[in-house]
Amino acid sequence: MAKAEELQGLRDEVEQVSLEIVRLLGKRMELVARIADAKKKLGEPLVDFEVERRVRSRLSDEARKLGISEELVNKITTLMLQESVKLQEAGEKPKRQVSHFDIFRRARELEAEGKRVVRLEVGEPDLGAPGEVAGATAEAVKQGRSRYSDAKGIAELRKKLAEYLSNKYNTEVKAENLILTPGGRFAIYLTMRTTLNMGDEIIIIDPSWPMYKNCAEFLGVRPVVVNTSVENGWLPNADEVAEKITQATRAIVLNYPCNPTGKVIDRRTFRKLLDIARENNLYVISDEVYADYSFSEYPPSVLEYDDANFIRVSSFSKSWGMTGYRVGYVTASRELVERMAKINGMLITCVPEF
Amino acid sequence: MAKAEELQGLRDEVEQVSLEIVRLLGKRMELVARIADAKKKLGEPLVDFEVERRVRSRLSDEARKLGISEELVNKITTLMLQESVKLQEAGEKPKRQVSHFDIFRRARELEAEGKRVVRLEVGEPDLGAPGEVAGATAEAVKQGRSRYSDAKGIAELRKKLAEYLSNKYNTEVKAENLILTPGGRFAIYLTMRTTLNMGDEIIIIDPSWPMYKNCAEFLGVRPVVVNTSVENGWLPNADEVAEKITQATRAIVLNYPCNPTGKVIDRRTFRKLLDIARENNLYVISDEVYADYSFSEYPPSVLEYDDANFIRVSSFSKSWGMTGYRVGYVTASRELVERMAKINGMLITCVPEF
Repeated sequence: MAKAEELQGLRDEVEQVSLEIVRLLGKRMELVARIADAKKKLGEPLVDFEVERRVRSRLSDEARKLGISEELVNKITTLMLQESVKLQEAGEKPKRQVSHFDIFRRARELEAEGKRVVRLEVGEPDLGAPGEVAGATAEAVKQGRSRYSDAKGIAELRKKLAEYLSNKYNTEVKAENLILTPGGRFAIYLTMRTTLNMGDEIIIIDPSWPMYKNCAEFLGVRPVVVNTSVENGWLPNADEVAEKITQATRAIVLNYPCNPTGKVIDRRTFRKLLDIARENNLYVISDEVYADYSFSEYPPSVLEYDDANFIRVSSFSKSWGMTGYRVGYVTASRELVERMAKINGMLITCVPEF
Repeated sequence: MAKAEELQGLRDEVEQVSLEIVRLLGKRMELVARIADAKKKLGEPLVDFEVERRVRSRLSDEARKLGISEELVNKITTLMLQESVKLQEAGEKPKRQVSHFDIFRRARELEAEGKRVVRLEVGEPDLGAPGEVAGATAEAVKQGRSRYSDAKGIAELRKKLAEYLSNKYNTEVKAENLILTPGGRFAIYLTMRTTLNMGDEIIIIDPSWPMYKNCAEFLGVRPVVVNTSVENGWLPNADEVAEKITQATRAIVLNYPCNPTGKVIDRRTFRKLLDIARENNLYVISDEVYADYSFSEYPPSVLEYDDANFIRVSSFSKSWGMTGYRVGYVTASRELVERMAKINGMLITCVPEF
């Protein structure tokens, strides 16, 4: 009986503490509204990323000091910061951004009117799928190879891909390191969903394919940008990358050959970036879908380095003109592939076998 | 200058309040650990859903009273409760559950050994895809219809589907109410991702296809179960459903004909459940993939009712034996379809055109 009373007492205490947390949230939002006001009068921008980072880092330190989960505090901090931004932006006009898909649609319209349009807005190769692929696909469909299959993709294909990559990069990729996805975008999503938590930061080198930031934000992850420019040959500065790393940083996206700049990175800089990632225990998400689109150098790949935190994303779209087949794939450690397979299996069962 | 100082002062205050929140989180976790201890001594189960709901509802009330976002408080409450469970379960043995995919794999193994296995574990029709479909697909592939297409699926198919559904259910479905997805699972995911937030509750009628709970948990949404049994003919009790609804409830999943029970719901009960949903402003996610698998009654559909919060999920897998083609689709209000299209476009670009 005494034990039961003690339990009830503890529960009441938890409730009081929880209510106090909510009240403090209320107080916080009140202060944030006043800050928004003060900023407006000073003509300052509403979102100050450096202030946010300082808050995040202070709270994270406090969590560590108290011995409570940093992940939990990071997530709650993210929610509070998101709410602050929402509150401060209330009444502001939403920014309408032109996406590359708007341009894609406009191009289609112009073409429908009979105009000739040179299409640079979407990475759709002119080549089209090889005849053998189309033939074999048609054959597989006719043979009825259209039942549920493996969440990682069919074994034959993974084995062949493993051989192909092992030869190409003079390394050892096994079938167990590969998972097929419905396109390169889903490969990026699976990779980010598996390696990142809400409240984490990810370093992205701009200009970049919008998917990286969109997907990060979709997952409550904060993209931290390192800029490059045509003046420095679109080459990221390694020191600048290192400077952007905080306790919250979990990953960096590399995309060479780069969409949209076309930049092929040199091996020395690539290596330097990988070293920085390794020193800081970051995942490297190397999007190498354009690996076969280099006219000069042979582009470097994370597969040339042996590290369980290096992940290579690719697809059949660009190398083999198979955009509409929707086949992407990830090369990663066995453990990561298993975690991705669970999500793949839940969300899409499998990719078509044909 | 005075303004700038005021801004700094406010920022310092926000930081203090935020730190105080983290400290209270620490205190909360300490109390939770003691509760876990007390429960163990009393032999009580670690997770008490009713206690959780009471906490959630108290905090939600407080948020409303203070005029701060209930959604924010719901999310933070969810994170705190998840952390509590994690903390209390630390040291407990993980429960290994047998999934239907384990059985699927075992069946394949037995078949590989030459044994004859009657397969009930996965909903894969014997029929296989119709010859015309396989033929037309093969033809489309050969013609090179394998480029990027629309995030909602090709217009012709959506138009045809709209006509088909309009005729079948004597209603008016337009192409703009339809979106194609890579399979029924992804249709469920898109629907839940679009209608639910972390911390929301969703009502699921058991026994049920595991996807509903898995997907809800994947999104930080709490599944609330209403049980049915063979004794009452697998019929859900409408009053029981109504009782489970709280402020946090956002949706209910209906799945008739039901996987796994095979139950076809009668129109009167179906209607009653829809009325309850409407009264409580809930989304209805009606998974009707087995709509063509009824040997007696003609199964009711949400499409027979006109409500922007009713969503129908279906696929080509069960009706037309096209499991391996991976084609699912959602019928919903135009506004919901637009939101789903954004996510579809980001995560998978489009489904294959062929």
